[in-house]
Amino acid sequence: MNDATELAPQAPNGGADRVGQVPPGTTELLGVLAYGELSAFDRMSADARYAPTLSGRVALSQMASAEMGHFRRLAAYLARLDVNVEDAMVPFIAPLEAFHDSTAPHSWLESLVKAHVGDGLAADFYREIAEWLDPVTRDLVFDVLSDTGHSSFAVREVRRACQADPRLTGALALWGRRLLGEAITQAQYVVADHDDLATLIITGSGDLMGIAALFRRLQMGHTERMKSLGLA
Amino acid sequence: MNDATELAPQAPNGGADRVGQVPPGTTELLGVLAYGELSAFDRMSADARYAPTLSGRVALSQMASAEMGHFRRLAAYLARLDVNVEDAMVPFIAPLEAFHDSTAPHSWLESLVKAHVGDGLAADFYREIAEWLDPVTRDLVFDVLSDTGHSSFAVREVRRACQADPRLTGALALWGRRLLGEAITQAQYVVADHDDLATLIITGSGDLMGIAALFRRLQMGHTERMKSLGLA
Repeated sequence: MNDATELAPQAPNGGADRVGQVPPGTTELLGVLAYGELSAFDRMSADARYAPTLSGRVALSQMASAEMGHFRRLAAYLARLDVNVEDAMVPFIAPLEAFHDSTAPHSWLESLVKAHVGDGLAADFYREIAEWLDPVTRDLVFDVLSDTGHSSFAVREVRRACQADPRLTGALALWGRRLLGEAITQAQYVVADHDDLATLIITGSGDLMGIAALFRRLQMGHTERMKSLGLA
Repeated sequence: MNDATELAPQAPNGGADRVGQVPPGTTELLGVLAYGELSAFDRMSADARYAPTLSGRVALSQMASAEMGHFRRLAAYLARLDVNVEDAMVPFIAPLEAFHDSTAPHSWLESLVKAHVGDGLAADFYREIAEWLDPVTRDLVFDVLSDTGHSSFAVREVRRACQADPRLTGALALWGRRLLGEAITQAQYVVADHDDLATLIITGSGDLMGIAALFRRLQMGHTERMKSLGLA
């Protein structure tokens, strides 16, 4: 397993302090995160086009751009590990696109729920994994997972729409459940296909009980987000 | 005409130095520029999806995000003039969308030529107008018109494609001519519909001879860009 240990990166502050060796699975996590940011950009910029108002279009376009800011930081960090960001992303294109294809929103509100619920789930999952990485990588992951303002925008828009027409609530609640199911399915494929990532999760969570607890926490976070949208 | 003179903005550095009154036409110019940035973001992010390579997709997504950085600066400056950026943009949505609808690219290369040639033409036109504004607004306009790296990317990609298949050159050269024609048509509509902008251009260029000279300069800039693409 030590074969997979990469060269230690410099601290993101550009200082000369080394962080020791980065654990196996690090470049995989950064790669899936980078593709996540790129596809979030792609999705939000496409959704922006269907915003019902000019201010909604501006808001979403700005959030999409913030995702590319995160992407740049991940690419720079990977470069310091001597890894090309595109090479790191390639293995994750198919599963992430499969998730997006299987959950293509049919309305502006569905796309907002998806962005809030999907990004939230992914962020919770990545944050759990990042806890088991070296401190420098962990802090970078936490930083790039910070919300670009999309969540409060989605919550505001979805709540307002459901207040104006309460019949929307049931269908959007079902949509949220479906997103959770598809996300877990795809996450399982991703982990099953990437030994280093699987090892990181199994080692990190301790045992099967630990993994079960991790999934329970993810589910609880999901329920909280659905509540914040007024859909649970 | 003084009725249209807006309150002077603070310098962009946040200092207290005032720039005197801003000439009529200033908010119109900033409004059309802001919508130009928003629609450049929209177009580049859509084009990114059709990039033939992952690195092309990343490059275009990053350039699209840089446009939103320019947008934010224009919005902040307009806010200091007590003008909402959305209000300033509204009058220019229809003509800019008309231009984009009439020049929808049918291939990756057409979209690159359009971005290079269209943005270059618009930038030259806005820079000429900005010369007649107060120095603070002028410097902001020059800043937000700075190239986000798109030009050299387009030049590289188009030249490479035409070297690989010289038969592409003729059709892309025609496409460039068509873009020039449509851009001038739409620019004339925009100016005809906005008295303050028209006044600014007529006063600034001196007389009809001055306007003719301005259009000649725009045409020369266009020819230079077509040459840089290897299409003239």
